[in-house]
Amino acid sequence: MPNSFGQIFRITTWGESHGGSVGVVVDGCPPNIPLDESDIQGELNRRKPGQSRITTPRKEEDLAHIYSGTFQGKTLGTPICVMVMNKDARPHDYDEISTKFRPSHSDFGYQTKYGIRNWEGGGRSSARETIGRVAAGAIAKKVLKLLYNVEILACVAQIHHIKANFDLEKVTMDQVESSIVRCPDPEAAEKMIACIKEARREGDSVGGIIHCIARNVPAALGEPVFDKLDADLAKAMLSLPAAKGFDLGTGFEAALYKGSEHNDTYIPLNGKVVTATNRSGGIQGGISNGMPIIFRVAFKPTSTIMQPQKTVTVEGEETILQPKGRHDPCVLPRAIPIVEAMTAITLLDHALRQNSLEISRLLH
Amino acid sequence: MPNSFGQIFRITTWGESHGGSVGVVVDGCPPNIPLDESDIQGELNRRKPGQSRITTPRKEEDLAHIYSGTFQGKTLGTPICVMVMNKDARPHDYDEISTKFRPSHSDFGYQTKYGIRNWEGGGRSSARETIGRVAAGAIAKKVLKLLYNVEILACVAQIHHIKANFDLEKVTMDQVESSIVRCPDPEAAEKMIACIKEARREGDSVGGIIHCIARNVPAALGEPVFDKLDADLAKAMLSLPAAKGFDLGTGFEAALYKGSEHNDTYIPLNGKVVTATNRSGGIQGGISNGMPIIFRVAFKPTSTIMQPQKTVTVEGEETILQPKGRHDPCVLPRAIPIVEAMTAITLLDHALRQNSLEISRLLH
Amino acid sequence: MPNSFGQIFRITTWGESHGGSVGVVVDGCPPNIPLDESDIQGELNRRKPGQSRITTPRKEEDLAHIYSGTFQGKTLGTPICVMVMNKDARPHDYDEISTKFRPSHSDFGYQTKYGIRNWEGGGRSSARETIGRVAAGAIAKKVLKLLYNVEILACVAQIHHIKANFDLEKVTMDQVESSIVRCPDPEAAEKMIACIKEARREGDSVGGIIHCIARNVPAALGEPVFDKLDADLAKAMLSLPAAKGFDLGTGFEAALYKGSEHNDTYIPLNGKVVTATNRSGGIQGGISNGMPIIFRVAFKPTSTIMQPQKTVTVEGEETILQPKGRHDPCVLPRAIPIVEAMTAITLLDHALRQNSLEISRLLH
Amino acid sequence: MPNSFGQIFRITTWGESHGGSVGVVVDGCPPNIPLDESDIQGELNRRKPGQSRITTPRKEEDLAHIYSGTFQGKTLGTPICVMVMNKDARPHDYDEISTKFRPSHSDFGYQTKYGIRNWEGGGRSSARETIGRVAAGAIAKKVLKLLYNVEILACVAQIHHIKANFDLEKVTMDQVESSIVRCPDPEAAEKMIACIKEARREGDSVGGIIHCIARNVPAALGEPVFDKLDADLAKAMLSLPAAKGFDLGTGFEAALYKGSEHNDTYIPLNGKVVTATNRSGGIQGGISNGMPIIFRVAFKPTSTIMQPQKTVTVEGEETILQPKGRHDPCVLPRAIPIVEAMTAITLLDHALRQNSLEISRLLH
Repeated sequence: MPNSFGQIFRITTWGESHGGSVGVVVDGCPPNIPLDESDIQGELNRRKPGQSRITTPRKEEDLAHIYSGTFQGKTLGTPICVMVMNKDARPHDYDEISTKFRPSHSDFGYQTKYGIRNWEGGGRSSARETIGRVAAGAIAKKVLKLLYNVEILACVAQIHHIKANFDLEKVTMDQVESSIVRCPDPEAAEKMIACIKEARREGDSVGGIIHCIARNVPAALGEPVFDKLDADLAKAMLSLPAAKGFDLGTGFEAALYKGSEHNDTYIPLNGKVVTATNRSGGIQGGISNGMPIIFRVAFKPTSTIMQPQKTVTVEGEETILQPKGRHDPCVLPRAIPIVEAMTAITLLDHALRQNSLEISRLLH
Repeated sequence: MPNSFGQIFRITTWGESHGGSVGVVVDGCPPNIPLDESDIQGELNRRKPGQSRITTPRKEEDLAHIYSGTFQGKTLGTPICVMVMNKDARPHDYDEISTKFRPSHSDFGYQTKYGIRNWEGGGRSSARETIGRVAAGAIAKKVLKLLYNVEILACVAQIHHIKANFDLEKVTMDQVESSIVRCPDPEAAEKMIACIKEARREGDSVGGIIHCIARNVPAALGEPVFDKLDADLAKAMLSLPAAKGFDLGTGFEAALYKGSEHNDTYIPLNGKVVTATNRSGGIQGGISNGMPIIFRVAFKPTSTIMQPQKTVTVEGEETILQPKGRHDPCVLPRAIPIVEAMTAITLLDHALRQNSLEISRLLH
Repeated sequence: MPNSFGQIFRITTWGESHGGSVGVVVDGCPPNIPLDESDIQGELNRRKPGQSRITTPRKEEDLAHIYSGTFQGKTLGTPICVMVMNKDARPHDYDEISTKFRPSHSDFGYQTKYGIRNWEGGGRSSARETIGRVAAGAIAKKVLKLLYNVEILACVAQIHHIKANFDLEKVTMDQVESSIVRCPDPEAAEKMIACIKEARREGDSVGGIIHCIARNVPAALGEPVFDKLDADLAKAMLSLPAAKGFDLGTGFEAALYKGSEHNDTYIPLNGKVVTATNRSGGIQGGISNGMPIIFRVAFKPTSTIMQPQKTVTVEGEETILQPKGRHDPCVLPRAIPIVEAMTAITLLDHALRQNSLEISRLLH
Repeated sequence: MPNSFGQIFRITTWGESHGGSVGVVVDGCPPNIPLDESDIQGELNRRKPGQSRITTPRKEEDLAHIYSGTFQGKTLGTPICVMVMNKDARPHDYDEISTKFRPSHSDFGYQTKYGIRNWEGGGRSSARETIGRVAAGAIAKKVLKLLYNVEILACVAQIHHIKANFDLEKVTMDQVESSIVRCPDPEAAEKMIACIKEARREGDSVGGIIHCIARNVPAALGEPVFDKLDADLAKAMLSLPAAKGFDLGTGFEAALYKGSEHNDTYIPLNGKVVTATNRSGGIQGGISNGMPIIFRVAFKPTSTIMQPQKTVTVEGEETILQPKGRHDPCVLPRAIPIVEAMTAITLLDHALRQNSLEISRLLH
C-alpha cells in the first residue's frame, strides 16, 4: 500500500521515469459522474515537461487514456485506470548514475532499501510518477466541483529570495496561469523567471514556496484524531518529490500571536456560521469549518544539478559526479497542478468518508 | 480507522477528557520485548497535568495499567491494551460551553460533523486523548532502543517571540528536562517561563515551535511514494492538538539555498556512507539515510483563554463566552513527550515494514 | 491490524483468557445512536460461560462497562471502548500445558509464530476473545435495527450426527433461545443435549453446523471485486475459533443443480423486485439483493479434550498430555451470539460503505 | 479499496469485460526477484478463453505486458503494472441485457448499487476481471517457489453429480493438466467433459467443487484473531465469481468426528514437528502448522444460460430474457488457475507479514 493514497477515494500509482508507462488506478470514485479523457488531459498539460523555457526540455505529449471504469461517458463506480506511455526516454544519459549516488537524491535511499534501483532517470522517484496523481486529481476536482462547487488553486509565492505579493483569497486561475512560473504577482513573476533562468545557466537549481487555497469546501470534513483533514493534507504534500514543509493558516507564524489575537471569532452570516478571520486556515480540531482552506508547501532546490559534485560510488568510494540528463532547474511551476491534485484527492476522500457517517440521517 | 495510526505497529486510541477512561490498544508490537507498566509510566509522568506551575492545575495521577498482551514481563505479539482512568473531572465547569462554541476550538467542528458533542472539557479533542499516544510511544521507544539504540528527543525552541539558541545535534535529555518549559537554552527557558506565566495572568495563551531529533535511525526506512517517512511524520505531527506546521531539515528555509549549496555531499566514513551536512534532515526521497532525523513542529496558542470573547451559540446567535475550566496557557512543555511518542510510533512502524521487505535475503 | 475487522465500522479487540481483561474499541459507529450497557449485556449473557449444564463451568459475570464514545446515552461518533474484567481465572490448571502442545490447538502455532505464548488457558485464542466481538456486534445490531429493521438470527442445525429439521426462513429468536443448545427443532435439540452430555462424560467433544439468516438487509451492500459481501462474511466466520467452513445459499450443494434449476427468477412484488427462490442466499455478484441472507458455518469438535493424548513437548519430544481446565465439550451453543455478532459487524460496515458511495445523490 | 486485496503484497485490479483493458498493479512485491512476461503468460494461458471445446469460444490471446516495477529482468520493489488488452469484444450480443436483468447474475446488484452498469458482457463481474488476479498470482507463485519451494495445485473434484476419486496429497500438475477439465481422475474427467458438453447443448450450465493443496508452506503464517490464514483464504475464494462455499481440512464433515478422532497428533520427525494426520488442513488457530494446506471451493452453475428465462426489466416489469453472447457452460476448468492465484497471493502476503514480525531476531 505504499503506492496507494486515500481510504474511500483511493488511488494507486505505478511507473518509473524510463519504464514502459506511468499511470493510476482510481478506486472508489462515485458512479454516474460525467468523465472522459479531456477532463484529465487539461491538468496533465499543466504538468507536462517542455511546456515552457523554464522547465525540463524532455518532450512528452503525456496523452492520457482511460482503460476502465467509465461507460457511455460516465463513471461506473468501478476502478478507473488511466495510463500515459513514456516516449522520450534517453536512458543513456544516465550511465554514470548507475555507479554513483546523486547527492540529496533518492538514489542512495532506493539502493539501501531495495538493494536494486532503476538508475535510468529518477526511476520511481522521478516527477513522472506524479502523472498518476494529476490524472486522479483531475477526476477528484471534477467530482468536488459538481458536488460542492469546490475550487482549488495553488500558486508560487516564493522562488529563492524572491517573494511575491498577492491576496490569496482573491487570486484567480487566470492570474496564476498568465505567467509560466505560475505566480499571480506579475512583477515578482518576471524576477522569478529570471532567477530560474540564471540558475539553469549556472547548472544550478532553486527552490521556493507554494501557497494553496481550496474554496467552498463544506464544513465537517476530517476524521479526528489521526485522520484530521490537515494531517492528511500534510501527508499528501510531504509525499511530493522535493517537499520539505507544510503549514496551515498562520502556520509557523502562529507563535507570534497570543491566543486572544489568534482565535477566529465566529459570526452569523446569512443563516450560516462563519469566522471573522481565518488564521486557522479553514480547519479547526482537524475538521473543516467551511472557510477557505489555506496552506503552504516548501520545496527544496532540485537536487540534480549540472555541476560537478563530490559523492561516493555504489561501493562507497569517493568520486566526482558530473550529471547529464534533462532536468527542471526549479520544480515549483510544474508542481502547481500536482499540489492541487493531491489537495483534491484528499478533500474528496474525506467528503466520501463524511458522507458514510451521515447515515444517521436515516434515523430521523 | 480515524482513531488508528500505523500499518504494522498500529495504535488505536479512545477516550474523552471527561469520560470514564482514556487508553490505547497497540497491535503489531513485536513479541518477546521486556515490558511492564514502569516503561510507560515514566513517559506519562512527563505528559501529565499539574506537573509544574506553567501547566493546567487539573490533578490526575495518570496511572497506566496494562490489561493484555504481556506474559511474565514480555510482550506476546498480541494486542497490548493500556488504560488510564479519568479522575479529577469537573464537568460543571463547562456548562456554558454546552450552548456556545469556543472560538478556534474543535467544538464547532465536532457539532457540525457528528450532530452531537461531549461538551464536558474538550471531549475527544482534549489533550487527554494523547495519553494513549504517549503510552504507545513509550512501547515503541523501548523497542527502537533495543533494536537499534534509537534515541528520540524533542525540545522547545520558541515560545511566542522568545527563540532559544542551542545545537540540536548535541542536546541531551537531561538538558531538556532540567527546565519545566523543556527548553535546553537555560536563559531562553527562564524568559519562556515568564512569558507563559504572564499569559496565564492575562487569561491569555501563547504558542511556539518544537524541534525534534531522532538519532541512530537505520537507513532504508520509508515507503515511497505515498508512505514516505517524512510524509508519515508530517501526518503524525499535524494530528496533534494545536499543531499548525511541520518541516524537515532546512524546511521552509530551503528556498534560500541554491541546489549547489543545499545538497548534502556523501562521504565514506568507517565503512559506512554518511553525509557531510544534513540539510535533508535525515530523509531523502522519503527514505531515511542513516543521519539524524530533524524536524520542527509549530503550535498555535491554546484556543481556550480566560477572557470574554465574541462567538455564536449552537443555534447561531451572537453571544459572549466567558470560559471556565482548567487549561494550559501554553501546550508546548507537555507536548514534548507527545511529539516524541508519535515520532517513535512512526519510526517503529516503518522499521517493521522495512523488515517485511527484507524477506529477499532468504534468496541468497 | 490483525486484531481489527471492518473498514468504516471497525472493531479492535484485545485480551487473553487469563490476562487482566478482554474488550473492544469500536471506531466508526454512527453518532446519535441511543446506547448504554444494557444493549450490550444481553448479548454477552447469551455468550457467557456457565450459562447451562452443557457449557464450561467457568464462572464469569462478564459485566460490560462502556468507557468512552457515548454522552448522555447517545453515541458520539468517537471510539466506543467496552471492557470486561477476567475474574475466575485458574492459571494453575494449565501448568502441564506450559511444556506440551495440545493437539489441534493453537499452542503450536502461537509458539512457532511468536516464540512465546500465554499458556494459561487459551491465551489469545480462547473463546474469551470473542467477548469483544459480541459487545461490538450488539452495537452493530442496534444500529442495523434502527436504520433498516435488520434482524439477525443464528441457530444450531447439526451436532455430531444429529441433524435438525426446521424452516430457517420462519425461525424466531424465541424458538432458538428456548433450548440451551439453541436449536429450533425441539426433538433434535433434546438429542443434541444428550449427545453433548455424553461427550463430556467421555472427556470428549463434538462439533456441528450453525445456520444463520439476516432479514431485511437492504439491497446494494457489498463491494466487488474483493470486498464482496459474501467474501467478507466468509472471512468473518472463518476468523471464529474452531470454524472450518462457510457456505452461502445452496453452497456446497450448488453442484447438484443445473443453471436452469439454480437461477433465482426475478419477479415484481409491490413495486419492488424480489426473487421467486433464494438459492443465492441473498447475495449475487457479491452484492445483497434484498432477499434474506442465508449461510452455514461448520465447527470442528473442541480440540481440548479430557482424555490422554499423544503429543510433543515444546522441545519436540514425544509425551502424553492429560489436560485439566474447564472447557466446552461443544462450542456451538455459545457460538450462536458470536456468529450473529460477526454478521452484524460485517453488514453494518458494508451499509456505511454503501452510504459513502451514495454521495452521487447530491448531484440530482 | 474494494478492488485491492492483501496487506503487504497488495494487488489492485481494474477492467470490464468489454472495456479497453484489464490488469493489475502489484504493490509490495519483494525486490530482486527475477521476473519477466513469460512468468505470467503461462498462467494466463491456463485461464484464457477458447482454450478447449468446453470453454467459451471468445477468442482472446490475453498477452500480458509488464509496464513497470522491473529493471533488467528483476523486480524493483516498486509497483508492478501488468495489462492485457481486450480484443474480441462483441458488445452488440448484449443489447437485450441493457434493459433486462439476467437471473442470479450481478446485473441487478450493480444497477442497484451504482445506479449504472456496463451491460456489455459481464462488465466488472466478468471472469475477465480475474486476469489481473492470475497475473499477480503468477508473480506470487514465483516468489513463494524461490523463497520456500511452495507448490500450489488446484483441481476439479466434482462437476454436477460426477465425483472424482483421487488422493489430493499425491496429485501432480501433469495429472491435472492432462485433461481439459483439469480433473486428475481420468475416468471421472471423461464423464465431466461429457456432462459439460451436454449442458452446453441444452443451453444450460453446471457447477462443481474444486480442491486445492499448497505444499511446503512454512509454519507460522496467519495473523489471529481476524486475519487468520484460513479466514483470508476464505475471503479470497468467496471473492471469486460464482463461488458459494469454502471449507478447510475436514470442513463441513468435521461434525462427524469426535474431538478424540479429529485431533491431529503431533509427532517428531527428523527434528521437525509434524502431525500424524491432517484433518486441520494445515492450519490450526488460524496459523499454518507446516503441513499441506488443503481446502475446497464450491461453485454454482454459471448463471448465464442460453434458455429463455422469466425475469424483470430495469423498470421492474415482467419479461422474458433470451441471452446471447459467448459463455462458459461450466466455470471450473478455467477457475483452477484463478484459485491457485488467489491462494498464492494470500500466502505470500502472510509470509511477508510474518517476516515483519521476525524483527525480534535482531534482539538476540
